[in-house]
Amino acid sequence: MDLKDYIRTVPDFPEPGILFRDITTLLHQPQALRYTIDSLAEQTGSLGADYVVGIESRGFMFGTPLALKLGCGFVPVRKPGKLPAAVFKEEYTLEYGKNALEIHQDAFVVPGRVLVVDDLLATGGTAAAAAQLVERAGGTVVGFGFIIELTFLNGRAKLPEGPSAVALVSY
Amino acid sequence: MDLKDYIRTVPDFPEPGILFRDITTLLHQPQALRYTIDSLAEQTGSLGADYVVGIESRGFMFGTPLALKLGCGFVPVRKPGKLPAAVFKEEYTLEYGKNALEIHQDAFVVPGRVLVVDDLLATGGTAAAAAQLVERAGGTVVGFGFIIELTFLNGRAKLPEGPSAVALVSY
Repeated sequence: MDLKDYIRTVPDFPEPGILFRDITTLLHQPQALRYTIDSLAEQTGSLGADYVVGIESRGFMFGTPLALKLGCGFVPVRKPGKLPAAVFKEEYTLEYGKNALEIHQDAFVVPGRVLVVDDLLATGGTAAAAAQLVERAGGTVVGFGFIIELTFLNGRAKLPEGPSAVALVSY
Repeated sequence: MDLKDYIRTVPDFPEPGILFRDITTLLHQPQALRYTIDSLAEQTGSLGADYVVGIESRGFMFGTPLALKLGCGFVPVRKPGKLPAAVFKEEYTLEYGKNALEIHQDAFVVPGRVLVVDDLLATGGTAAAAAQLVERAGGTVVGFGFIIELTFLNGRAKLPEGPSAVALVSY
């Protein structure tokens, strides 16, 4: 199955000139959704992760089914103010302005190996911030899993060295 | 398994006086996550849904694994400005102020039976708005699935009559 057949390209979203890769058309098709999670599990299963971390919001859509498939726990990394208990916060720069992410301080009260999941690897800033949060909370990042990689943005250069990074589809 | 053992109660979040039911402690435990999705699937499988709709953001965490388990497609209902293609928008009132949700207009280009999923049934406003969006986009709501129901808020009264509503845990 070629997942690109299920990913829709929407021009000029969220800004003029940007080609947005829309995964809702993939999620919509049961066989494409299943193939996506099975492929991610195949390519990350050997990492022996104890936890899957999903990055808000699209990372949640792929993170929990992958956690279930791998027999891992799931931990959300969220936008500021959404997690109810004590958090660590990490700011990072975007193309336009700043953003921040949070993780529960007790997310890895039992320490473990962590696979960080998001739908898209673009500049890598979001995934790198998530990885820093995982380490601050006592987890060990062993890998990254993405559905889509925008290779021309060279996001891999921003990810920590060591952990492997898997992307199912590249543009 | 009693899921309440895995749900943490955080006082005074997001407002003073509110007891927040935190499902991150449930997601964190592989066996509790599996039991949650299996239970939801057992209690909704007979509805014969073609699609699971998850409501941003916590509904995404439970919606995609349930869709996978039931062999359904997954459709996100999102906060305004997040979906890239043409949308329908529905405003609804909260305890404090207003909110809005959106769905892709072509979410059910192949019409079908829809199960709406969120983590929490509180006042019912969010789920009712999601159900209206589903119907506007050409889907037929056949049921609602929640992890937690706050029965004292009587949210069921706001849901459309007809579709069944399942909640795994009640407070």
